[in-house]
Amino acid sequence: MGSFIEHTLLYSIFITWLLLIHQIRSTAVERSTYIVHMDKSVMPKAFISHHHWYTSTVHSLTSVGPTKSDVSRSKPSLVYSYDNVVHGFSALLSRDELEAVKKSPGFVSAYGDRQIKLRTTRTPEFLSLNPSTGIWPASDYGRDVIVGIVDTGIWPESQSFSDGGLTSSPIPAKWKGTCEIGQEFNASMCNAKLIGARYFNRGLLANKPYLNLTMKSARDTFGHGTHCASIAAGNYVRGRSYFGYAEGTARGIAPRARLAVYKVDWAEGFQSSDFLAGIDQAVADGVDVLSLSFGFDADLPFHENPIAIATFGAMENGIVVSHAGGNTGPDFLSIFDSIPWTVTVAAGSIDRSFVGTLTLGNGLKITGWSLFPASALVEKLPLYYNKALASCNSSDLLAQVPSSAIVICDDTYDYFNQLSAIANSSVAAAIFITGNPELGTSGSFPRPGVAISQNDGPALIEYAKTSGRPWASMKFQQTVVGTKHSPTLEYYSSRGPSRTYTRLLKPDLMAPGSLVLAAWPPNKPASRIGLSMFLSNDYTLLSGTSMAAPHVAGLSALLKAAHPDWSAAAIRSAMMTTANPLDNSNSPIQDKGQNYTFASPLGMGSGHIDPNLALDPGLIYDLTPQEYVNVLCYMNYTEKQILTVTRSRLYNCSNPSPDLNYPSFIALYSNESTMVRTFQRTLTNVGDDAATYNVEVVVPIGSKVTVSPNTLVFGKKYEKKSYSLTIEYESDENGTRAYGSLAWVEDNGKHKVRSPIVVTPEVTL
Amino acid sequence: MGSFIEHTLLYSIFITWLLLIHQIRSTAVERSTYIVHMDKSVMPKAFISHHHWYTSTVHSLTSVGPTKSDVSRSKPSLVYSYDNVVHGFSALLSRDELEAVKKSPGFVSAYGDRQIKLRTTRTPEFLSLNPSTGIWPASDYGRDVIVGIVDTGIWPESQSFSDGGLTSSPIPAKWKGTCEIGQEFNASMCNAKLIGARYFNRGLLANKPYLNLTMKSARDTFGHGTHCASIAAGNYVRGRSYFGYAEGTARGIAPRARLAVYKVDWAEGFQSSDFLAGIDQAVADGVDVLSLSFGFDADLPFHENPIAIATFGAMENGIVVSHAGGNTGPDFLSIFDSIPWTVTVAAGSIDRSFVGTLTLGNGLKITGWSLFPASALVEKLPLYYNKALASCNSSDLLAQVPSSAIVICDDTYDYFNQLSAIANSSVAAAIFITGNPELGTSGSFPRPGVAISQNDGPALIEYAKTSGRPWASMKFQQTVVGTKHSPTLEYYSSRGPSRTYTRLLKPDLMAPGSLVLAAWPPNKPASRIGLSMFLSNDYTLLSGTSMAAPHVAGLSALLKAAHPDWSAAAIRSAMMTTANPLDNSNSPIQDKGQNYTFASPLGMGSGHIDPNLALDPGLIYDLTPQEYVNVLCYMNYTEKQILTVTRSRLYNCSNPSPDLNYPSFIALYSNESTMVRTFQRTLTNVGDDAATYNVEVVVPIGSKVTVSPNTLVFGKKYEKKSYSLTIEYESDENGTRAYGSLAWVEDNGKHKVRSPIVVTPEVTL
Repeated sequence: MGSFIEHTLLYSIFITWLLLIHQIRSTAVERSTYIVHMDKSVMPKAFISHHHWYTSTVHSLTSVGPTKSDVSRSKPSLVYSYDNVVHGFSALLSRDELEAVKKSPGFVSAYGDRQIKLRTTRTPEFLSLNPSTGIWPASDYGRDVIVGIVDTGIWPESQSFSDGGLTSSPIPAKWKGTCEIGQEFNASMCNAKLIGARYFNRGLLANKPYLNLTMKSARDTFGHGTHCASIAAGNYVRGRSYFGYAEGTARGIAPRARLAVYKVDWAEGFQSSDFLAGIDQAVADGVDVLSLSFGFDADLPFHENPIAIATFGAMENGIVVSHAGGNTGPDFLSIFDSIPWTVTVAAGSIDRSFVGTLTLGNGLKITGWSLFPASALVEKLPLYYNKALASCNSSDLLAQVPSSAIVICDDTYDYFNQLSAIANSSVAAAIFITGNPELGTSGSFPRPGVAISQNDGPALIEYAKTSGRPWASMKFQQTVVGTKHSPTLEYYSSRGPSRTYTRLLKPDLMAPGSLVLAAWPPNKPASRIGLSMFLSNDYTLLSGTSMAAPHVAGLSALLKAAHPDWSAAAIRSAMMTTANPLDNSNSPIQDKGQNYTFASPLGMGSGHIDPNLALDPGLIYDLTPQEYVNVLCYMNYTEKQILTVTRSRLYNCSNPSPDLNYPSFIALYSNESTMVRTFQRTLTNVGDDAATYNVEVVVPIGSKVTVSPNTLVFGKKYEKKSYSLTIEYESDENGTRAYGSLAWVEDNGKHKVRSPIVVTPEVTL
Repeated sequence: MGSFIEHTLLYSIFITWLLLIHQIRSTAVERSTYIVHMDKSVMPKAFISHHHWYTSTVHSLTSVGPTKSDVSRSKPSLVYSYDNVVHGFSALLSRDELEAVKKSPGFVSAYGDRQIKLRTTRTPEFLSLNPSTGIWPASDYGRDVIVGIVDTGIWPESQSFSDGGLTSSPIPAKWKGTCEIGQEFNASMCNAKLIGARYFNRGLLANKPYLNLTMKSARDTFGHGTHCASIAAGNYVRGRSYFGYAEGTARGIAPRARLAVYKVDWAEGFQSSDFLAGIDQAVADGVDVLSLSFGFDADLPFHENPIAIATFGAMENGIVVSHAGGNTGPDFLSIFDSIPWTVTVAAGSIDRSFVGTLTLGNGLKITGWSLFPASALVEKLPLYYNKALASCNSSDLLAQVPSSAIVICDDTYDYFNQLSAIANSSVAAAIFITGNPELGTSGSFPRPGVAISQNDGPALIEYAKTSGRPWASMKFQQTVVGTKHSPTLEYYSSRGPSRTYTRLLKPDLMAPGSLVLAAWPPNKPASRIGLSMFLSNDYTLLSGTSMAAPHVAGLSALLKAAHPDWSAAAIRSAMMTTANPLDNSNSPIQDKGQNYTFASPLGMGSGHIDPNLALDPGLIYDLTPQEYVNVLCYMNYTEKQILTVTRSRLYNCSNPSPDLNYPSFIALYSNESTMVRTFQRTLTNVGDDAATYNVEVVVPIGSKVTVSPNTLVFGKKYEKKSYSLTIEYESDENGTRAYGSLAWVEDNGKHKVRSPIVVTPEVTL
């Protein structure tokens, strides 16, 4: 299992701390936690509930094998019973006991508990959300829809979680008592916005029995969950900023939706048994949408991937699951956890820049980038340029710079390493000449300075070298919106194709993910000055697909409110077929990970979400749970492996299929020079009336594309029509990837239902 | 000449810079600037103006004595002609030439040009100013009154100087063209609030001809003048703060008054010849009130004190001059520039605290003081206490403290020195145990920390010593108002008696002077982090009598608007006789310079200004210019010395008098054991009707006091009544000072006209 690293300094602080804590205890254990999937249909009638059955199964193991005197682990014990997304339990078992369980009646599968790791408000405007028209008023801002956040918990005091504007909606009675109080958590902290907050740590404690958990409640001791929750459904909070940057009203995508929080990730660790318990509960609680900003950065088969298993049950219950695609870009084949029944989200930039202005003594003004968290005064200070020191790669080197001077750091060394060296120095200020594509994703700027482009570097250096007494001034805390080109696909965002199931194009779509301003616990660092002076703030800027996923969760809540009868697949289809492949200059979205060339669907999926268009997509590609199972059958999963995912024998493998009725197309060719792939699709008319659609195809270079029929005529709402797409690839060049699209365009021009097409070499697994 | 040091770190930064600049040029000169007073009444009729006369006088000197080849100084030259507060001129003269001038017809006196040096918005509320009742509505917030600020210039872009609410009042035509443009100054920068801005630097340039002045305009390159101007008459500016402290609406005492600015103090120096030119122009321009926040910290006789000379002319023109009393306290006899015709202002604290909260691991919460200019995160950090290091008196010592720890600094060393040592260290945070009376006057707090009282010290140290793993958390950016006791007389405020004229009780009254939030140039340091990371802000907190004086100038503007017919002496009398000797606990005002014992009139004059009472004082002590001259006559000033001050032979010395019709009493005894002093006073009824007042006396210990008559019956408005006060002192103990008061209380209780009484040993000059 890997980690989806946040692209922020803050996260690295957290990571450091996490490792320290984790090193405290490392006892030699003989039992460990296993997740055991059971076939509930064969439960003996003697048991009044699944829980009794599972308990009895574990208790019957007490006589198995020898045990030592370790008190807390002296016998096998049940950690959780699951009944919603998993049929089965987790339990602390020895290897012998596990073998005994495998021989029990109803046993389906078992695997070891795993550690999971995490993947982070201009964005409503950037997404054209507005109170006068479109999806916000149409959905009443997501009123009463429940967004479940499965993450690090919640900071309930944040103003983002106040229930202003929601108190008139009665909270369903079943939520009474779901606000779990720990030492610091209080039931009164839940309200009409934050209707429930539960925590799950039995898996963690079973694994590390000597842990003295610092927090026995759903309180967020990290900040990641708080940030994600406020992105999806934070209430309106005026006058917030990040140390003078990004000033404005903070609010989520669905500001009138409710939040239910499931804390499964702890400072001390994050186990899949706890995660499964959280999702199991969220489904029982009846959430409408789930936002998951974490994953395994490993190619796990679906029946061994707790996220895939848990979300299948969620999908069956009509829950839209928005899942962060990961931060392991920019290479192709860098995406993991590509689950057919979730929405996999890539991250893009926002049209907002944090500007540092540099004025030179010769009058030249250079607009650069800065997030120094204070109104530093850098006024007519001497400029220091020395080719030998300009790499700025060590504190020792920087000690040679006069302390009242502005040092010029060139692009001969990594920008982020320069930033650290400068933080550790005593220079008055720094100018970084850099082309680093991740510049706009880090909130860290620990010393006064401006990062400028490589284009602006020569004029600066020339002035510094030729003027007798070169000097410069800087201005900070400036925020500019409308930046072109936006969005761009972020460097870090994980790219397809997916190794897990190569016949599915992942990610599905792109949402804002970089430097998103959202709620933050005031007792966690939000920025720093120098090396170790940490600053507090109730909102912070974070970057990552972790931040993109709750945007899509918020949009899913709006769509659920507007279309309560739509399936999770229908909502995903609406978001994907209306997603925009163009940026705010109406040119194709660029890719920071590919030197600003055009982003491919392997990076951004169908494109950038367009909430107002998603409200009324015209046609949708719907899917039933059985259709997903058909793919598992095609993949040659065994009956037990399929049962592990589906829990139910009501599904069958009578119709295995390599393809899904999915709103995107990926055709993989092997080393042969020709390939013919045919895709079958069925569209449902969700427009109000009869409608006629004609096909528009952008053909991938090197391929021939045939669509049949070319016109789809729907007589009424909810009517279904099918078509086939055939891609014939013929090329001498191996390894080329080609992209195109298929769009069904209504003859009155009202709706356009677009799907990306990817032709790419077969993935070698 | 001394310096009136601001009690802020910022000022010391400025001072340092000033010295550097001043060291650049130091040429051996043979001519220097002299200020020459002339008897204009004897100007020969041949001259069409005084300016021609003076020019001719200087030109006639070209043949006097040998000169060297120093081009710019090759001949004597006129610097300024003065005609309003001074009759005469300033000129660059050699000693020989000066002697020749002395022999010219009409010569009165001459002296060398001198260098002068300089001496902050909760305060309107603290002074009970409010829009619904009292002096604000009665004076229409000082509308159309012109406050002249003679200082370091102005930052015209400050929102405090916008003319919202003033544009309906036409600006007098004579102000056209008074907005002096320099390289960066633009006429359009003046408006209905800032009606004029002039600069005066010829004296400075005459003295230092090689100076390349960085600024040739009235623009403020320091900030002091901008700060003072906005205190007196700044417009309403919402949502201002000092790095999160003192948040609220910034505004001056007279928010609808106008400002006319005279820049006389330059980064490169401050000459009395420029100062005289500034006041001369202000009087010609017709300002109503002058605010002077600078002085000579030296005992200059009035005829050699340019401030005394210039303000006499201002007084004659009905201009109220508010003059900062100086920051040379807390000793007695520390006041200088005690001018009978100005209002001399002492500085008090405000009922506002900037709170740093300390929470210890054992649950103890300690409320202390902090102005750290950022939301530092100090959360459960280890406490470090080591008796040997607790003096925190050097960076070397502090290098031994773990960098993630909070160091405890005890009171074995000076707090301000500890603050500097901590700034220069890398400790995470510091706790200062201190009783320093100047704690609440400094805006500097360069590293996260809290200053706590000596009472709270032992519990902290006990916890740090006895707990195995002591820790603490801190909270910053907290502002508390209503602090008791407030006001208190500040440590730094200069105390009487005055050496210049011992028979006058100075200072006259006290106004808010410490940590006043007012406008500030954004290109000057407003705070700093660590040793050298300076921060910018458009408002800052400063302390000093420099900040107290413009409060009184603002109040004078309100009184001038409400009572346009009152003389400067009447306005001063109204402020003094209604001043409050009690604090917000209704107990006598305490003195930080005397270990919080009760402040004496030698420190606070009549007490703390009470604007709403000053609006309607009942009775006033008025004074004519001749009465001031009578005192100069009594002091045995020569005719020429008196003419130097008065410029006019219309005054006479037929009635020399040791005493003035002043609203306070000071009786000095010599080494003899008895002393009898009688004071004559005349009161003018400015109440609307006939009124009867009875005397109430608080007798100074060791004295007998007789007032005759005991009752004053006024038949109508403007009627005058006289009384005499006799103080008989009889004591064996030499050196004791005793304090009392005399109050005329209207029989209906409506008005109380109070004067302080001081009995003190004769000053040895």
